[in-house]
Amino acid sequence: MTSVGQEMHRLVERLYPLCRSITGDGVRATLDIVGEYLPLQVHEVPTGTQVLDWTVPQEWNIRDAYVADAAGNRVIDFAESNLHVLGYSVPVDTTMPLSELRKHLHTLPDQPSLVPYRTSYYTPTWGFCLAQDALDALPEGDYRVRVDSTLADGHLTYAEHVVPGQVPDEVIVSCHTCHPSLANDNLAGIAVATFLARALSEQTPYYTYRFVFAPGTIGAITWLARNQERIEEVKHGLVLACAGDAGSLTYKRSRRGDAEIDRVVRHVLEASQRPHRVDEFTPYGYDERQYCSPGFDLGVGSLSRTPYAGYPEYHTSGDNPGFVSPKAMTDTLDVCREAFGVLDRNRRYLNQSPYGEPQLGRRGLYDSLGGRSDAKQAQMAMLWVLSMSDGEHTLLDVAERSALAFDTVAVAADALRDAGLIKE
Amino acid sequence: MTSVGQEMHRLVERLYPLCRSITGDGVRATLDIVGEYLPLQVHEVPTGTQVLDWTVPQEWNIRDAYVADAAGNRVIDFAESNLHVLGYSVPVDTTMPLSELRKHLHTLPDQPSLVPYRTSYYTPTWGFCLAQDALDALPEGDYRVRVDSTLADGHLTYAEHVVPGQVPDEVIVSCHTCHPSLANDNLAGIAVATFLARALSEQTPYYTYRFVFAPGTIGAITWLARNQERIEEVKHGLVLACAGDAGSLTYKRSRRGDAEIDRVVRHVLEASQRPHRVDEFTPYGYDERQYCSPGFDLGVGSLSRTPYAGYPEYHTSGDNPGFVSPKAMTDTLDVCREAFGVLDRNRRYLNQSPYGEPQLGRRGLYDSLGGRSDAKQAQMAMLWVLSMSDGEHTLLDVAERSALAFDTVAVAADALRDAGLIKE
Amino acid sequence: MTSVGQEMHRLVERLYPLCRSITGDGVRATLDIVGEYLPLQVHEVPTGTQVLDWTVPQEWNIRDAYVADAAGNRVIDFAESNLHVLGYSVPVDTTMPLSELRKHLHTLPDQPSLVPYRTSYYTPTWGFCLAQDALDALPEGDYRVRVDSTLADGHLTYAEHVVPGQVPDEVIVSCHTCHPSLANDNLAGIAVATFLARALSEQTPYYTYRFVFAPGTIGAITWLARNQERIEEVKHGLVLACAGDAGSLTYKRSRRGDAEIDRVVRHVLEASQRPHRVDEFTPYGYDERQYCSPGFDLGVGSLSRTPYAGYPEYHTSGDNPGFVSPKAMTDTLDVCREAFGVLDRNRRYLNQSPYGEPQLGRRGLYDSLGGRSDAKQAQMAMLWVLSMSDGEHTLLDVAERSALAFDTVAVAADALRDAGLIKE
Repeated sequence: MTSVGQEMHRLVERLYPLCRSITGDGVRATLDIVGEYLPLQVHEVPTGTQVLDWTVPQEWNIRDAYVADAAGNRVIDFAESNLHVLGYSVPVDTTMPLSELRKHLHTLPDQPSLVPYRTSYYTPTWGFCLAQDALDALPEGDYRVRVDSTLADGHLTYAEHVVPGQVPDEVIVSCHTCHPSLANDNLAGIAVATFLARALSEQTPYYTYRFVFAPGTIGAITWLARNQERIEEVKHGLVLACAGDAGSLTYKRSRRGDAEIDRVVRHVLEASQRPHRVDEFTPYGYDERQYCSPGFDLGVGSLSRTPYAGYPEYHTSGDNPGFVSPKAMTDTLDVCREAFGVLDRNRRYLNQSPYGEPQLGRRGLYDSLGGRSDAKQAQMAMLWVLSMSDGEHTLLDVAERSALAFDTVAVAADALRDAGLIKE
Repeated sequence: MTSVGQEMHRLVERLYPLCRSITGDGVRATLDIVGEYLPLQVHEVPTGTQVLDWTVPQEWNIRDAYVADAAGNRVIDFAESNLHVLGYSVPVDTTMPLSELRKHLHTLPDQPSLVPYRTSYYTPTWGFCLAQDALDALPEGDYRVRVDSTLADGHLTYAEHVVPGQVPDEVIVSCHTCHPSLANDNLAGIAVATFLARALSEQTPYYTYRFVFAPGTIGAITWLARNQERIEEVKHGLVLACAGDAGSLTYKRSRRGDAEIDRVVRHVLEASQRPHRVDEFTPYGYDERQYCSPGFDLGVGSLSRTPYAGYPEYHTSGDNPGFVSPKAMTDTLDVCREAFGVLDRNRRYLNQSPYGEPQLGRRGLYDSLGGRSDAKQAQMAMLWVLSMSDGEHTLLDVAERSALAFDTVAVAADALRDAGLIKE
Repeated sequence: MTSVGQEMHRLVERLYPLCRSITGDGVRATLDIVGEYLPLQVHEVPTGTQVLDWTVPQEWNIRDAYVADAAGNRVIDFAESNLHVLGYSVPVDTTMPLSELRKHLHTLPDQPSLVPYRTSYYTPTWGFCLAQDALDALPEGDYRVRVDSTLADGHLTYAEHVVPGQVPDEVIVSCHTCHPSLANDNLAGIAVATFLARALSEQTPYYTYRFVFAPGTIGAITWLARNQERIEEVKHGLVLACAGDAGSLTYKRSRRGDAEIDRVVRHVLEASQRPHRVDEFTPYGYDERQYCSPGFDLGVGSLSRTPYAGYPEYHTSGDNPGFVSPKAMTDTLDVCREAFGVLDRNRRYLNQSPYGEPQLGRRGLYDSLGGRSDAKQAQMAMLWVLSMSDGEHTLLDVAERSALAFDTVAVAADALRDAGLIKE
C-alpha cells in the first residue's frame, strides 16, 4: 500500500517537468494534475485586469528554446530543462557571437555545476540560464539563438478548493504555483496542500478551509483583489512553501506577531517536541507578504522546512525531486493537521457558574473521594477551564497556562459545556 | 516568659486531638479554644441552605468507631487517632470477613507506616484508614465494624474576628478549619491567623482586617455566598495554610497575578532576603480557589511554607505537632505582619508642586549645604516620592523603582504629606 | 589646522579660571566668552522673582577671600583657586583661632590632596575649602579671615541660542553654568553644546534647536517658569554634563523612560558599537530633574561620559582641564550629532498603497530581474517601510525591527515618499 508521503512525492514527480510561470499553459497543466486529486475551481483572469496596485500581465507560453553551435548542436536546450530559459523571455531567433550572447546568459559562478532559476516578468527581455561549467566549455564563435515563445493577451490562472465548515469564517491555505522545475519551491508545498485538503474533507471542520493555488505575488494580489469585499471572513491562514526538504520546520509569524495562527502553530511545534524554529515576520519571502500587507494585515503565517533562500539548492537545478522526501512532506502535513486540529477547537468560553467553584461532584464530573493527592489531569483541566473561562482566554491559553495538553483541555471543555457550566 | 512561637505551638497541640470536619462539634470545639485567644463571632448555617452552586450538607458527628477482631480487640480505633475514620462515614455496625472489609480500608502502600487522611463528604459511605503495615499484620477472619456517627440536619459552623480599621475597605485572612488531626494542614495556619489578629488589634490599622475561620471549600463558599452583596469592600486577602513546617516560605499569587497583595508579599519576601518562592496562581490548592473564582476574582493570595501537597507527610498521620515548629510559625507570622505593614501604608499620592522640584530647603526638608555627594537616603526618598507621585504610582512602586526600603519611602512620604507637598 | 576637539578644549581652558556661581559676574563673563563662538540671547531675571516654587536669590559677587596667618601669609587664597571659598559665602573680616575657624573649613579626609567644591546658596554662612593635607599643616593660633563678597539684590543670568528649524517644535539642549573651576562638570558640557549649536546652524534642521546655558536647578527652574506657557512646543531635549572625561558614554533616560529621545540615543550608541551604558531615570543628577518633574514630564534625557558623582575627581580640584580631553569631547559631540541626525529624520508615515505590495518595479524602485537571492538592502528597507508605515511605527521602529541602518531606512523612506507611496 502506498503511504501518503509516497503519494505526495509521486505528485511532485509528475508536476516537476512542467514549465510553470506566473501565467500560461504550464500553470493550467499543473492544476489539471492537482485536479485529479482534488476538485478545483479554476479562475482565469484576463490580461489587463487591474488588481490592487498591479495589472494582470500578458500571458507567456513557450514551445521551444535553444542555443546551438555552428554545427547545429543544441548546447543549451529548453527541452532538457525548462530552467534553461529566463522566465518570460520574449521571442528571438538570431545568430550572434558568444561575446554578445554572454549578456543574455545567467550562471552561478559559486555553484558552477548548477543551473540558476531566473525570470524577468515586467521588463521585456530574453535570456538563458546554464551551469558555469557549461558556459566555460563553450568555444568562442557564432551561436544560433532561438526562443519560440509568445507573450500575448490571455489570462492569469489560479485555482481554489473549499472544504466547507460549520461556520463561514475561513482559514486560507495558500501556495505558489509559478515556479517551473523546482521541487521544494514549491511542488512540495502544492503536494502537502493537496493532501491536507483531502484530509480535512474527510470530516466537517469548524472553519471553512479555502485552498488557494496561485502564482506568487501577482497571483496572491489577484486573489486578494477579487476577494477584497469579503476579506473579513478570512480569520486565519497559512502559506505553504519549501515543505519537503530535509531541514526541520520553520514557522514564520504573521505581521501581527501574535495572531491566533501564530500561537497555534508555535504551540503545536513546541508541544510535539519537534526540532523547529519560529521566526518573526519580515516583509520578504512568499505570499504572506501580500496577505500581511498593512491594509489587509491578515493572521497569515508561513510554514516551511528550511525557509526561503536558506539552502544552497534554492532557485537552482539542485532543487529537484531528489531534494524532497516523502518523510519530510509527511511531517509537514502532520504539523498542519495538528495545528488545524487545535485551531478548529480553540474556543473562548464563559463560565456560567463563576461565583465560587461549581460543585462538579453532583454533576458526575469529579471523583467524590476527597483528600487524595493524585488528582487526575482531567479534573485539573476542568478547574483550569472554569477558572480561565472569563470571555478573554481561549482553550489554547488554558493549555499553555496550565501546561496541560490541548487535547486534555478540549475534552474537559466539552464535558463542562455539555454540563452547561461553560458556554461560548 | 513564653514566646509567641511557643504560644502558637501550644495552641496547635490543644487543637490537635479534636475531630474536625466540614461540620460538626469538632469545629465548634476548635472555635471555642481559638475564642479563648480572640473574640469570635460564630455563624451557624442550617443544613440545606443554598450557598452559590452548593448546598450546606448534613452535619456529621462521631462518637466512636473501631474495627475489632474476633477476640474483641480493637485493631483500628478512632479513639487512638481520628484519622482512622474516613471523614463523613455513615453509621455502620456489622461483622464481615477481612476480604470484604478491605474495600473500606485506605492505606498508603508507598508510606506503609503512615495513616492516610481521607473523606467522602458528598458520597455516603463509610471507611477506615490505617497504616499499610498494620493492615498487613491483620489475620484473615471476621471483624466487627462499628462507626457510631450521626449524619443529620444541623449546621455548618464558621467564625469571624474583625479588627476595625480607619476605612471600611477590608483585608480578609482566611484559614480552613475542617481538617482533623493534621498539624501543618491547618492548625498552624489557624494559630498564625489567631496571633496575627491579636497583633493587628494592638493598633488601629488603615484597613479593616477580617479573619475567617471556616471549613475548606464549602466554608469559603458559604462565607462568599453570605457576603456577596458587600464583596466589593474586600480589597485584599490572604489564605494561610501549611504555615508551620520547616520549609521556606511560598507565596502563591492571586488569579489576577499582579494584585496589590501579590506585589506586597513578593516585595516583603524579597526585601527581607528570606529564601522563598513565588508561584503563579493555579485553580487548585486551598480556599484561594473560591476567592479567586472568576466571578469574584478577588486579590487574594496564599501564604504557605512548603506548599499544598508538597511534603511526604501531607494528609497523613506524619503531619503531627512535631512536624511544625514555633520558629517556623513565628517566621510566617512575621512575614504576615511585615506584609500588612506595607499594605497598610501603601498609598498613591499626587504631587501638589509638580512643576520643577519644590524647594525642600525652606521647608526644612533638605540639607542646605549643597555640593556634597553623600546625599542621604531620606532625601533621595523624598525626591523619588515627588517624582513618582503622579496619581499612578504607589509608595511600593517608589520603593521598588528606587531600591529604597519601603519604610524609608513611607517616612519620606509622611514628611512630604505633612508639608503639604503631596496629597492622597 | 585646529581640530574641533582642540577648539573645545581651548574654550574649557579659557572658562576654567572664572568664578561662576548660580548668579553673578562670573556667569556673565562665561556667557561673554561663549558669545564669541555663538550669538547668545542673555536673560537677566531680578532677585525676588517668583519662579515656580522658588524665588530668584540675591546676586553673589566676590572680589577676594583669604585666610592669613599671624605673619600675614595667605594660607588659603581665593586668588589661587576659586574652589577655596564656599560658594555664596557672606562677607566676613575677622580674626579667630584655628580651633574656631575649623567649623568653617571643608576638606576631603579621604582625598587629602584635593580641595572640595562646596556651596551654601540658601543658608547664609561663610566658609573655606582646602586640602586635608594643607589643613593638617596649619599650626594652631590666630588667623585673619576675610571674604570680600557682596550678596545683594541683582539678577540671575542665563542665555539661549536658537537654531531655527523647519517646524516650531523644539529640541532643547541644556547645560549648567554655575560651577566654578570644574572642567568636566561642566565646562566640557558647555563646550560641546557650543560646538553642537554651531554644527546644527550649518543647515536648517527639521526641529528648532534651543540651547540653554543656565545655572543648575534655579536656572532651569527659572527657564521653565518663563517658558511654561509654550512648554508644549518642547518635544525633546538633552542635558549635557560631564562631557569630557576619559570614561565611556552614559545616557540617562528621561522620566518617561521610552521617550523618543531615549530610543534615539540608545539606538545611536548601540548602532555605533561604542562602549556605553544606558541608565534608568532617577530624580537626582543634573537639570533633567527639573525638565522631567512630573508636571512637565518632558522627553529630556541626559548625556554624560562618567555620570554624575561617578569619578573620584567629582566636585574637587582634581576636575581640572587636564581631566578632560579633546578626544572625549569630540566623541560626545559626534554622538549628539548622530542622535540629532536620527531624531531629525525620524518620521511616522502612512502607506498610501497598503493593500498588497505596491508594484515598485514600474516606479523604478525595484530591480526588475527577479529570482535572484541577493536582494539589496535598499529594497529590503523599502519593503520594511511599506510594511510598517501604518501610522504607528516610526522610521526608527523600522530600523530597529529590520536591523537595517537608520540611514538606509531613511533613504528608502525618502524614495517612497517621493514616489507618493507613503505620506506623513
